[in-house]
Amino acid sequence: MAQKPSIPKGTRDFSPAEMMRRTYIFETIKRVFRTYGYAPLETPSMENLSTLLGKYGDEGDKLLFKILNSGDYAAGLNDEQIRQASKICEKGLRYDLTVPFARYVVQHQSEITFPFKRYQVQPVWRADRPQKGRYREFYQCDVDVIGSRSLLNEVELIEIVERVFALLGIGVTLKMNNRKILYGIAEAIGHADKMMDITVAIDKLEKIGLDNVKAELAERGLDEEAIAKLQPILELSGTNAEKLQKLADVISCSETGMKGIEEMTEIFGYVEDADINLRIELDLSLARGLNYYTGAIFEVKAEDFAIGSICGGGRYDDLTGIFGLPNTSGVGISFGADRIYDVMVGLDLFPEEVDFTTKVMFVNLGKEEVLESLKIMRKLRLAGAATEIYPEPAKMKKQMEYANRRNIPYVVIIGSNELQERKATVKNMRTGEQMSVDFCEVSDLAYL
Amino acid sequence: MAQKPSIPKGTRDFSPAEMMRRTYIFETIKRVFRTYGYAPLETPSMENLSTLLGKYGDEGDKLLFKILNSGDYAAGLNDEQIRQASKICEKGLRYDLTVPFARYVVQHQSEITFPFKRYQVQPVWRADRPQKGRYREFYQCDVDVIGSRSLLNEVELIEIVERVFALLGIGVTLKMNNRKILYGIAEAIGHADKMMDITVAIDKLEKIGLDNVKAELAERGLDEEAIAKLQPILELSGTNAEKLQKLADVISCSETGMKGIEEMTEIFGYVEDADINLRIELDLSLARGLNYYTGAIFEVKAEDFAIGSICGGGRYDDLTGIFGLPNTSGVGISFGADRIYDVMVGLDLFPEEVDFTTKVMFVNLGKEEVLESLKIMRKLRLAGAATEIYPEPAKMKKQMEYANRRNIPYVVIIGSNELQERKATVKNMRTGEQMSVDFCEVSDLAYL
Repeated sequence: MAQKPSIPKGTRDFSPAEMMRRTYIFETIKRVFRTYGYAPLETPSMENLSTLLGKYGDEGDKLLFKILNSGDYAAGLNDEQIRQASKICEKGLRYDLTVPFARYVVQHQSEITFPFKRYQVQPVWRADRPQKGRYREFYQCDVDVIGSRSLLNEVELIEIVERVFALLGIGVTLKMNNRKILYGIAEAIGHADKMMDITVAIDKLEKIGLDNVKAELAERGLDEEAIAKLQPILELSGTNAEKLQKLADVISCSETGMKGIEEMTEIFGYVEDADINLRIELDLSLARGLNYYTGAIFEVKAEDFAIGSICGGGRYDDLTGIFGLPNTSGVGISFGADRIYDVMVGLDLFPEEVDFTTKVMFVNLGKEEVLESLKIMRKLRLAGAATEIYPEPAKMKKQMEYANRRNIPYVVIIGSNELQERKATVKNMRTGEQMSVDFCEVSDLAYL
Repeated sequence: MAQKPSIPKGTRDFSPAEMMRRTYIFETIKRVFRTYGYAPLETPSMENLSTLLGKYGDEGDKLLFKILNSGDYAAGLNDEQIRQASKICEKGLRYDLTVPFARYVVQHQSEITFPFKRYQVQPVWRADRPQKGRYREFYQCDVDVIGSRSLLNEVELIEIVERVFALLGIGVTLKMNNRKILYGIAEAIGHADKMMDITVAIDKLEKIGLDNVKAELAERGLDEEAIAKLQPILELSGTNAEKLQKLADVISCSETGMKGIEEMTEIFGYVEDADINLRIELDLSLARGLNYYTGAIFEVKAEDFAIGSICGGGRYDDLTGIFGLPNTSGVGISFGADRIYDVMVGLDLFPEEVDFTTKVMFVNLGKEEVLESLKIMRKLRLAGAATEIYPEPAKMKKQMEYANRRNIPYVVIIGSNELQERKATVKNMRTGEQMSVDFCEVSDLAYL
């Protein structure tokens, strides 16, 4: 019985046209990762629930997709056991690439050469309520180095951000902050215990404005005096060096805070000396939600397109501790492929070569013509040009329509006249121009 | 509390070394697919269970991984409902790429330009009992054209097989048969109704031998006379053309059988005329298990390595019928990446460039040296060479050990002497050779 086919809500099919564009983004990002010495890694789609549970907060636990145990799962269990998902599910789909990475590092620590530089581009799954721009299956592109406290790693990630977005043609600003500075601020205003509350509140500065942030800070138990002390910090202006200078005056009492300022000064110094051509802004309201960050944090904004951050990350000092390997510092960033895709569509940034999959199509005019075509096609393919022949000797109009709909830039026609003269008719589908080309020169189309 | 981390049985982590090799295989295959005009497609990891169930037989249904509905799945359901997986699971992980492809074609038929040539390289999941060489998550690499009955498509797939294995350096034999011929044989021996029984039995010829196949045929209800008629067919020898000729004499009474012979004659003719350099053998015992095949069938064997088939496929006339789009013929093949990997490891076929991820490592001898190094590294990276610097100014021995363990072929040393003379010391880690190279020429390492 025929069913009307559909896919689960929040998931997507990627058509060839979308895949060409997505592949272009992924390949660009991976190529940059590789030139910086990062090595590819893949982990299984399913992890044991014991690996995943408790790592993303209560909210995150609820968003895990759980996989029913295979076999006669329901037989032999009592009703209560069945009711408890933990008894019928031992595996879940990965929620991000960070926890599986930490799990991998701990599990394989004896085989790994540290510092371990890896990138990972794989889908993740979240049982979020689907809405515009939020999917239940989406790719993450993560790059991390673990086992080194050197700030050169931060500098390298900044250079990677610069390279990726330069290659994609997206103008960006990199916003940076440091968790140690945020702690220092909390300490300086007399509320070291409320560092997370302060962080959560000021993270919303851009979204809800200063007055609302102040209201939220009050709700979270900060007295007026503390809020008054905080305000000038949030309004610091000038160059990054100037901001750090002014900040140092305010939080000099906090050892941790001063360490954060020192880190940022060193990072910015390297960036300047190494001539990294990227707009970088110290943004003291940048906090980032994840609570495993302990040092520098990053967030990238597109300059000419209104969308959330398109890349982000930071330094973490104890990600692998949950799996039994403490004191292993790392730093990493993640590129948001879906948003980058939207920016590139919005600003029309995809290059022409991702607009088609086949470069040259041969018209099919019968067996003898096909046999000659196959020989020429082989040369085109060896030269790297995506080439095909219409599989049936259909009407010319139908074949040309196919080429048009597939957005194929060149069509080669070999009929009986062409066979006799050993010259093909080559049609440029963009301009409509037609040329007569020697059989042995048709493969030069590969280089156009 | 620290847990000892592990992954679900039957799944795998792919280390950087494995990823480099796997990526090499996948990229080679995809590159060939693209040069033949096939376009990339991706479908979601999860499909509705209604899409998957009933498509792979009862055995297949049991091997589907089912995903628990998200949210408060257990609340509000009675015990009986909970006990039935269909009530608590609406989604499953895809079992292969063929059914999702058929679903995609039917769902998007109005947007697709037919003939539709697509390739798809994605993981699939099966709740099989894990054992050596059999995993619960593995990649399939499928290439199909749908919406064309032309045998040129079969010829093109044969050429793709030739290209892929030539590029990978694996010597192969392509075994071919045709489901119409198998039907013709069944008809000729008076058992058209037992075509599937005959197919299943003779499919085992290579594995269990002729006598056992005969015994199985008897068990499946074939009389002695029919088995006697079948034997000479299974033992046909000579060239493919000779086999087809002899076969035609035996099954001339079967219209379908003769159609199969005609198809194979046309395909082999094209292959010869187009000079496709591949060993192709008509193997009348080749049947392939899947029952949606209706025409030519393919299977590829490695010549110098004992392993099952490393690629296979065939023509199907009604794959999309189950989803409501009948009469849409297609043909496709699938490459077995895990087995190809095993063959390439076994025969030592991976090229040297997949043995390392970083080509050039700079030794870290302090801040001033690092700043100079970063400038040279930028040039190397722009030239495409994977380059890194050891992030800490550690002892030289430790840094060289790191380079060794990472299998990095070139190490660049810039110390105070080198800074002064503006010449780097470049060490070839394979030969142990050291050279002094002008700063501005170090980036030439990218081209070695």
